[in-house]
Amino acid sequence: MLIKNALIATASDLYPGDIYIKDGVIKEIGENLNIDDNEIIDAEGNYVIPGGVDVHTHFSLDVGIAISNDDFRTGTIAAACGGTTSIVDHIGQGPVGSTLKSRIKHYHELADGKAVIDYSFHGVIAYNADEEKIKDMKELIKEGIESYKIYMTYGQRIGDEEALKVLKTAKENNAIVSVHPENHAAVEYLRKYYVENGMTSAEYHPKSRPEECEAEAINRIITLAHIVGDAPIYIVHLTSDMGLDYVKMARKRGQKNIYVETCTQYLVLDEELYKLPRTEGLKYVMSPPLRNKSNQEKLWRGIKNGDIQVVATDHCPFSYEKEKVPMGKDDFTKCPNGAPGVEARIPVLFSEGVMKGRISINKFVEVTSTNPAKICGMYPKKGSIAVGSDADLVIINKNKKINITKSLFHENVDYTSYEGLELQGYPIMTIVRGKVIVKNNEFIGEEGYGQFIKRYKNNDLVIY
Amino acid sequence: MLIKNALIATASDLYPGDIYIKDGVIKEIGENLNIDDNEIIDAEGNYVIPGGVDVHTHFSLDVGIAISNDDFRTGTIAAACGGTTSIVDHIGQGPVGSTLKSRIKHYHELADGKAVIDYSFHGVIAYNADEEKIKDMKELIKEGIESYKIYMTYGQRIGDEEALKVLKTAKENNAIVSVHPENHAAVEYLRKYYVENGMTSAEYHPKSRPEECEAEAINRIITLAHIVGDAPIYIVHLTSDMGLDYVKMARKRGQKNIYVETCTQYLVLDEELYKLPRTEGLKYVMSPPLRNKSNQEKLWRGIKNGDIQVVATDHCPFSYEKEKVPMGKDDFTKCPNGAPGVEARIPVLFSEGVMKGRISINKFVEVTSTNPAKICGMYPKKGSIAVGSDADLVIINKNKKINITKSLFHENVDYTSYEGLELQGYPIMTIVRGKVIVKNNEFIGEEGYGQFIKRYKNNDLVIY
Amino acid sequence: MLIKNALIATASDLYPGDIYIKDGVIKEIGENLNIDDNEIIDAEGNYVIPGGVDVHTHFSLDVGIAISNDDFRTGTIAAACGGTTSIVDHIGQGPVGSTLKSRIKHYHELADGKAVIDYSFHGVIAYNADEEKIKDMKELIKEGIESYKIYMTYGQRIGDEEALKVLKTAKENNAIVSVHPENHAAVEYLRKYYVENGMTSAEYHPKSRPEECEAEAINRIITLAHIVGDAPIYIVHLTSDMGLDYVKMARKRGQKNIYVETCTQYLVLDEELYKLPRTEGLKYVMSPPLRNKSNQEKLWRGIKNGDIQVVATDHCPFSYEKEKVPMGKDDFTKCPNGAPGVEARIPVLFSEGVMKGRISINKFVEVTSTNPAKICGMYPKKGSIAVGSDADLVIINKNKKINITKSLFHENVDYTSYEGLELQGYPIMTIVRGKVIVKNNEFIGEEGYGQFIKRYKNNDLVIY
Amino acid sequence: MLIKNALIATASDLYPGDIYIKDGVIKEIGENLNIDDNEIIDAEGNYVIPGGVDVHTHFSLDVGIAISNDDFRTGTIAAACGGTTSIVDHIGQGPVGSTLKSRIKHYHELADGKAVIDYSFHGVIAYNADEEKIKDMKELIKEGIESYKIYMTYGQRIGDEEALKVLKTAKENNAIVSVHPENHAAVEYLRKYYVENGMTSAEYHPKSRPEECEAEAINRIITLAHIVGDAPIYIVHLTSDMGLDYVKMARKRGQKNIYVETCTQYLVLDEELYKLPRTEGLKYVMSPPLRNKSNQEKLWRGIKNGDIQVVATDHCPFSYEKEKVPMGKDDFTKCPNGAPGVEARIPVLFSEGVMKGRISINKFVEVTSTNPAKICGMYPKKGSIAVGSDADLVIINKNKKINITKSLFHENVDYTSYEGLELQGYPIMTIVRGKVIVKNNEFIGEEGYGQFIKRYKNNDLVIY
Repeated sequence: MLIKNALIATASDLYPGDIYIKDGVIKEIGENLNIDDNEIIDAEGNYVIPGGVDVHTHFSLDVGIAISNDDFRTGTIAAACGGTTSIVDHIGQGPVGSTLKSRIKHYHELADGKAVIDYSFHGVIAYNADEEKIKDMKELIKEGIESYKIYMTYGQRIGDEEALKVLKTAKENNAIVSVHPENHAAVEYLRKYYVENGMTSAEYHPKSRPEECEAEAINRIITLAHIVGDAPIYIVHLTSDMGLDYVKMARKRGQKNIYVETCTQYLVLDEELYKLPRTEGLKYVMSPPLRNKSNQEKLWRGIKNGDIQVVATDHCPFSYEKEKVPMGKDDFTKCPNGAPGVEARIPVLFSEGVMKGRISINKFVEVTSTNPAKICGMYPKKGSIAVGSDADLVIINKNKKINITKSLFHENVDYTSYEGLELQGYPIMTIVRGKVIVKNNEFIGEEGYGQFIKRYKNNDLVIY
Repeated sequence: MLIKNALIATASDLYPGDIYIKDGVIKEIGENLNIDDNEIIDAEGNYVIPGGVDVHTHFSLDVGIAISNDDFRTGTIAAACGGTTSIVDHIGQGPVGSTLKSRIKHYHELADGKAVIDYSFHGVIAYNADEEKIKDMKELIKEGIESYKIYMTYGQRIGDEEALKVLKTAKENNAIVSVHPENHAAVEYLRKYYVENGMTSAEYHPKSRPEECEAEAINRIITLAHIVGDAPIYIVHLTSDMGLDYVKMARKRGQKNIYVETCTQYLVLDEELYKLPRTEGLKYVMSPPLRNKSNQEKLWRGIKNGDIQVVATDHCPFSYEKEKVPMGKDDFTKCPNGAPGVEARIPVLFSEGVMKGRISINKFVEVTSTNPAKICGMYPKKGSIAVGSDADLVIINKNKKINITKSLFHENVDYTSYEGLELQGYPIMTIVRGKVIVKNNEFIGEEGYGQFIKRYKNNDLVIY
Repeated sequence: MLIKNALIATASDLYPGDIYIKDGVIKEIGENLNIDDNEIIDAEGNYVIPGGVDVHTHFSLDVGIAISNDDFRTGTIAAACGGTTSIVDHIGQGPVGSTLKSRIKHYHELADGKAVIDYSFHGVIAYNADEEKIKDMKELIKEGIESYKIYMTYGQRIGDEEALKVLKTAKENNAIVSVHPENHAAVEYLRKYYVENGMTSAEYHPKSRPEECEAEAINRIITLAHIVGDAPIYIVHLTSDMGLDYVKMARKRGQKNIYVETCTQYLVLDEELYKLPRTEGLKYVMSPPLRNKSNQEKLWRGIKNGDIQVVATDHCPFSYEKEKVPMGKDDFTKCPNGAPGVEARIPVLFSEGVMKGRISINKFVEVTSTNPAKICGMYPKKGSIAVGSDADLVIINKNKKINITKSLFHENVDYTSYEGLELQGYPIMTIVRGKVIVKNNEFIGEEGYGQFIKRYKNNDLVIY
Repeated sequence: MLIKNALIATASDLYPGDIYIKDGVIKEIGENLNIDDNEIIDAEGNYVIPGGVDVHTHFSLDVGIAISNDDFRTGTIAAACGGTTSIVDHIGQGPVGSTLKSRIKHYHELADGKAVIDYSFHGVIAYNADEEKIKDMKELIKEGIESYKIYMTYGQRIGDEEALKVLKTAKENNAIVSVHPENHAAVEYLRKYYVENGMTSAEYHPKSRPEECEAEAINRIITLAHIVGDAPIYIVHLTSDMGLDYVKMARKRGQKNIYVETCTQYLVLDEELYKLPRTEGLKYVMSPPLRNKSNQEKLWRGIKNGDIQVVATDHCPFSYEKEKVPMGKDDFTKCPNGAPGVEARIPVLFSEGVMKGRISINKFVEVTSTNPAKICGMYPKKGSIAVGSDADLVIINKNKKINITKSLFHENVDYTSYEGLELQGYPIMTIVRGKVIVKNNEFIGEEGYGQFIKRYKNNDLVIY
């Protein structure tokens, strides 16, 4: 395949060129390449970016009271239509008796033959870090599972002592620990408080998980990582400036290997949405919750200044009508936590970020593709437009204007958090390993085309 | 020209590939390019990086009591041998009656037919910002002079009121203001104090220009830039963590367009050198001075964390034996200020930064080439390895061990500040616009090969 | 005189007791003192506090286009009625040919026989710090003038070089330098900008003097003070959290002798007032201007946390009808700068601070009386209720409710900035050197009762 | 009793005067009091300060492997000789089956008839915060036990969930929670690590409890306190600038009721002592450990700037020869934790603080007496020299020079941490409730003179 007239954007460069692809891999990049190929795509001067890498999704996640609505087929189709060509999903902890290895195996089964884009899994160390889990972890690292998630809250949380074991294992075996940071005791205290006092509407969801809870846990995991020799940590879904301050303090002290992710929703939505009339606030019940609007510009600034490395989605959709409302209408703590987002990420970031001048096209590529690929051990296979890399490419037409509405998206859920948002620019083509799978927002790929990505930490790619 | 077996490193990527060059420009990058060319260079798997861009040099600078020893021929030969392929030099303010335009014209004459690599000039707004200077500035911007230096100390300094005029003109005409930040009154007070009290050896040089003086001026110019609408400023030769703190505070407040440069010397040398026996401390008399060693790791951290955008040299060599000692031996304030450095930058940064694991190879490229090229309006012509860019390339052999000694270097001066420093890795070839001009530390190019680079601000390259 | 049943509050203590006064001085404090005295005052369990010390007033100040409306008689009557028993006024720079000594002499003439409470003067080093001024300063220090004001903006401003001379002289001669910090060039730029663009209403006054201008100058004077060995500085009328951050940074670095004053108006008023209809915003034209409301709680916090040492008034009243409106209605830059405040300070601070639980009664006494007395060299004569101190006492009835309205006050001006503010608690008696001069808001003292206070720095009272 | 010629120093005042005492209480303070009294003491112009209040001691503490060597008799004698007139001791958790109330009862028995100065106890909520403890806590608050200690490390630690219960109970019942902050999991990890790797000498003690562990726990308890509505917390034995930074951040955000204590040892001793030859480092095995010397000036600065409210001792002496060495010589983790200090506090703080110009005499009184008395609910009975307060007074002769050596002290232990320290100034008389109990370092009081102090929170004394 030959792509002509591309305006190629990487995390550092921007230049016009042609891209020649063979066997799913970028073979040549050049001016006016003169190569005979059956398939020639004219990019017409549009941006061609590395396909998006979303390292925070939850497909078919069983949260006990519900299962997230997108499976590896619908979820990856939505991702692809939104300009994302690789995802890293979180394994659920599974039924009693599950092991880390059995869960990874199960997720292979869930994804294999279903996914339409390439994928991998984060291990999850749930409930404890017993010897079996540590053993599994070591073996799975060799099989290309380079990242392990721990929760500091929820039923599956682990305590500081267990976290130290996971961090140590990661440090010694070239893996990274992904962390959901919220102080469990504080959150539980507040949830109980609000419910006991009859404050059960969605409006109390953010009040029950204030940013102090998140910031505390961020600071704690940073400390624990330091104790085992600056073990690499990846802080997911940062929502607030307060949390980021703790990260910056640690980096200033000299601590290495701290990576930070925020998500699209924290950049453009805010906690006022929880006050929407009737039960509509339940759409946004996710953890951590949306915050005060003043955080948005501070998070954008964090991206621009290089303090935040990744923008992901925490995509975990539940039906508003069938799940969120029935379960949560009388008590926000009963509402399944999570919201869709995998499809909106690239378009929203491009429009709100690049087109509004908040970040450069290079920074956009860096946080949506290159950095997550590097941090999660997928680079240079994924994450860039470079000779030798997989030909995962997305063409964005910056002149296309779109108003977001549910019908635009392919996510298997009955709402989008971004309803009504006006976009300037939209992906018009998605290519995975040299094959066009989305054209003008229509999925034309095939079920099961996606491949598992083995991920290994590359120590030459020191970012922080 | 075809470069085979390169390990291509850009500010974001690292991959093996071949580079095809025609008419001095990169035409294709590919796997095993199969192109007939007379000239094939085998990079043998070594790093191939974009040629260094040093935006802070002073060739043939008349400082009143002496003229810096490198002219555009010797200086650019040294630069080339050290892996730098573009420089931006500072015009001196010239004799009474000089105008900004006349000085630029004079510097064209100095460089034309002499420089062996490509070059440009920073305008300097000296003494005042009168109407003629502002008019010249506006016209010169159109001619590709995109950056204007102001001094907050020295005879040529301008005050806050004049600085506001320059900043406003820059903001409105798409230029950037480069700033030497030191509080003049404070420095003068201290210099006088030490001299009057008989403390005249080199040891008192750093005491006469403490980091507080630098930090104050940084904070002040940031404020002034903010007043005219976040005019773009480029803070040169940052030496200390204290100064950087002020920059970070301003960015946290939301101020845009603040860029920061440090120099090689502040990363690896420290103020203990001023205490060397006899007059040897005079070698390091430069302004701002070397600082307490504790700043070094903090500056490296600032580079890694993205707080510092550029590493340059402030190359301004004076003969130790013929100028520094005779003039400065009885009074450090009489010693010409400045030191050589243009040749050491790439090797020292590579060895101390990349090989010692402080920064990635990508960050190294970013701060030595891509960022200065972007900030100073030379990108994408300069600053990257991308199709369409000038074929300014440097091959670095990371296995080569070198001990720095004066004889290694081509600078026209009788010492190097880095004497004795052991390097791991060294440039083995320098190519400018497709022509090999240095091979194994031997200059094989020709005088006058260098071309003037017109520089224009590109508003799409928002970094900060 | 014997005061019975007092609830005595000092900067650190709170206890019931009786106070015996003789010859204007506190002789004894005890439980149920059994002393025969002609004059017995029953405090009825109300707070008895040290009389307020307001070290920032401008009586009869000639600002060129107008003269502030309160002279030493009306101004000190107002002060007394508001619970202030000592003031330190700023000498104006006077007509051409004035010297520092001649101005002090002139102010003695203005105050002598007029003032009803004790008083002193800050020297002002205006325009420059020439040899005569420095000589006068040294002599005046011996005569009890311990503080010298410099302006970083306005016509009478001095530059950094001159400021260093003043700081050095103060440091060496046991004086303190009081500083009005605003970046002159920046303020002038903005004032010109707004006027030239037709933005001349009061609303543009705060925009023409943004907090960045103040914060920059604060940081600069801190640096200059550091250069001469941490000379003591007293930063007047701090308005914003941003400025305070710079102070805290310096203190964290270890710099000593930085004192900070804020004023009543910055704690309870905000910049929305400039948008009042018609010309009413002109009432609040003062420099620095009122700020965004969010600063208020931060300033209160700064008081509570000990970051701010003093609350003063910058009392400088001009007639709204006769001066502010006629001069400023078409151009805010033509409006005389300043507002009344000397009478409101104690009542407003007590009600908004103590009664609303923001600060303790001890902190209230500390910032309104003890600290200013210590910093300005009047302690222990003034600033406390202690044996040997002047019997300057104020009785506050915390149960008295008052709505502020112009008619409440004795200031010689046609408005108050605090119109409509509801107060809980008010001074019911003011005693100066053992003589009751105000009773229930009625002045019963006599013109000229006030005495000049010689002020000398006491190095044992290290605060910061 | 009448004290003549005193130089009376309080937390805010300094003035010459006489003090008349009756029934153990200060009745009058005056100039040249002319009162007939049997007992007249001539202070000869020396400082008379409020007796020291040490709110952090451990007398007769059973730590499982040993019992701290001072009981309420020897400990309070030492305290008295060192200028301390009130102590608040920590109850041990006692044997299985102990309740909070039974422990308080037991401590009453330990102190009653033994203590020579006044005393109280901190409750300790150990192991958990079950219903019985919360019930006991509520009842004990009414009986004058106003403060409750929790440990975040050690066997008796409680987790975040339990801590929230204690904080809530304190907040609702007007008590304060005292906190030993160290991250337990991190400390345990490191202790195990060093022991397993044969690094068992005292030198590894500080490495096993780095300041990050302390700072993390400080930040966590601050967060938990915030969750229950800014419950009052008292952070004990702060050792480092890093921990203080977290406190300052929280205060800047607006969190109230955070109080900080440091101890004498962290101000004048440092971690180099752990490297002393043989086993001498064991003398300094305490938790948290001594830190890097650079923290010392920062802690002094924290005191001066008002960031730190109290200096206490954490007095917990074990015999060097009989306990520390035998138990700890082969493994620092087996060494009983703690060191003597109750006698050195006032002399060391006075000499190193006041006489070296780091803090004023007022600040010295504030942090050694007034603030601890206020925070721990003993003010105004204790903590000041004011009419109505207990006549707990200490006379300090600032001209007395003393070299600290073990024999100087009355502590029942075979070493002092301050051996060899030269002091300028020393207490020469200690008076408790009007009775002289120490004269020229000789105890002349009587066993059992001390009384239990009921302590109640006074909400009018808002400090932070």
